[in-house]
Amino acid sequence: MTHVLFTFSVKENLISKLQTEFHDVEFTFSTIGDVIALRKAEIIVSYGEDISKETLDLAPALKWLMIASAGLEKMPLIEIAERNIFMTNVKGIHKTPMTESVMAHLLALKRAIPWIYSQQEKQEWSKRSGSTELFGSTAIVLGPGAIGSEIGRLLQAFGVRTIGCNRSGNSAPHMNEVIPFDQLNKALPEADVIISVLPSTHETRGLLTYDHFELMKEQAIFMNFGRGDLVKEKDLLKAIKERQIAYAVLDVFEEEPLHENHPFWKMEGVIISPHVSSHSSEYVPRALEIFAHNLREWLNDGTSFQNVIDAEKGY
Amino acid sequence: MTHVLFTFSVKENLISKLQTEFHDVEFTFSTIGDVIALRKAEIIVSYGEDISKETLDLAPALKWLMIASAGLEKMPLIEIAERNIFMTNVKGIHKTPMTESVMAHLLALKRAIPWIYSQQEKQEWSKRSGSTELFGSTAIVLGPGAIGSEIGRLLQAFGVRTIGCNRSGNSAPHMNEVIPFDQLNKALPEADVIISVLPSTHETRGLLTYDHFELMKEQAIFMNFGRGDLVKEKDLLKAIKERQIAYAVLDVFEEEPLHENHPFWKMEGVIISPHVSSHSSEYVPRALEIFAHNLREWLNDGTSFQNVIDAEKGY
Repeated sequence: MTHVLFTFSVKENLISKLQTEFHDVEFTFSTIGDVIALRKAEIIVSYGEDISKETLDLAPALKWLMIASAGLEKMPLIEIAERNIFMTNVKGIHKTPMTESVMAHLLALKRAIPWIYSQQEKQEWSKRSGSTELFGSTAIVLGPGAIGSEIGRLLQAFGVRTIGCNRSGNSAPHMNEVIPFDQLNKALPEADVIISVLPSTHETRGLLTYDHFELMKEQAIFMNFGRGDLVKEKDLLKAIKERQIAYAVLDVFEEEPLHENHPFWKMEGVIISPHVSSHSSEYVPRALEIFAHNLREWLNDGTSFQNVIDAEKGY
Repeated sequence: MTHVLFTFSVKENLISKLQTEFHDVEFTFSTIGDVIALRKAEIIVSYGEDISKETLDLAPALKWLMIASAGLEKMPLIEIAERNIFMTNVKGIHKTPMTESVMAHLLALKRAIPWIYSQQEKQEWSKRSGSTELFGSTAIVLGPGAIGSEIGRLLQAFGVRTIGCNRSGNSAPHMNEVIPFDQLNKALPEADVIISVLPSTHETRGLLTYDHFELMKEQAIFMNFGRGDLVKEKDLLKAIKERQIAYAVLDVFEEEPLHENHPFWKMEGVIISPHVSSHSSEYVPRALEIFAHNLREWLNDGTSFQNVIDAEKGY
């Protein structure tokens, strides 16, 4: 019998679904501290942050590590590679919720949703919404990869011209044009919206500086949904204070959680999304779909696994 | 020389644009009370609510009435028809802003935007967003006409299944299926979102009753962006109080403005958009584009007019 240890809790209906399909598999829903389950486990399903070198030592039967997240930064990859443990993750799972969050924030600002909510709070009927439109805008998408292209697809559906911006300048789906990082300055003055979904690499850290914000339109909306180190906080603070741009919608920060006295909280034009843009009630169901697919392959000696990770390379 | 009286004010840059193109036309920007301008006016551009039988009597030279709105309910149509005054409006101008408002409200609720704003108000970092997704939902669009189909197009782009609902049940663009009004009951239990953009006619007044809300999912979002008389207020109030649905997003009401003590203001699950869903900074520029097109035709004895109204029929 195949033993699977889940180190996070799963809703009853999703457990039933797994047990109904895989009746020859024993599923244990517990924690990484459950040494008995750990010793038997051939497969561990975890968010990743509880997997250490010590975990591996206590799991001699472990052959497959299913990580229900996208980041692997803190995993003991060397040991995993040495033990030749098969590893999969849920890459791509953030695409839909992140894209919907970007569109939600953007449309909210264009269609005066903050004003509408605050008028309701005051029980005040007024028609002075000051609404504008997304239609006809130009957007720069920093990082037109899987998530960035999906954002581009929906922006285009709303009649937005999309300019992708990446290292190479090579074309990307759902972008009217793509420019390399070193031509960003030329495009900034035309952009109504600048969205970053860039990861943190040596090329993206500090990619944006105060000068870039000076080039943006006064009515521009800047959205950082990638990593907090894209721009130094002091540069961003200065640009917002001087009203170089109209809005900064921030899902990521140099330091998280944001300190309770941080100036961002109360600054006009700043929207703080506490790194929740990828959250979704559909996260676990979707992760379990990927897992179920791979488990079918595993049990049938198949080879069509999804999201296989090379532990040596780390991706 | 052709005399045009605008009875509403227009921004300087838009006036210049008209004057530059039409240098043989005299534009007066005033009010309907400007009897001198009224007497000379061959063309009047108005939002419509200032046009009465008396206006017409004071405007003997009037040959064309350009109404910069969609509704004509209060116009002296009989007198306009008798005088054979040419009439145009700006039908279709609401499509983009209304659709963006519907999508903004919908995505906001799915992606926890109200919670995000209120957390920022409290300066409280938390990850308990409770976000869900629009993707994979089913939506019923009551009134899949020009605006309803545009909503359908964008819903489908977000991976939503769309069910149009109209009188005939005849197919409509961007709807996975269309059902007639009398089959609505069958579709309601499957719908995550129910959006009405229906006009007020003898068939749509009171079309929805309490029983319909009882059939909806507890998690359903009901959006009325059509007319307030679609559902009796007491039925809607009862359904919301009993939590038959999760949210009612209301742009229109039985009585507008909504009274300051109306229970809607403070009810959980009610979002009040004070009949602003069609508002947009692009409204006047877009109306003037239609006007400029028609003025070109008018001056050149052309025939390709946009949005011509038959005053006898009233549409």
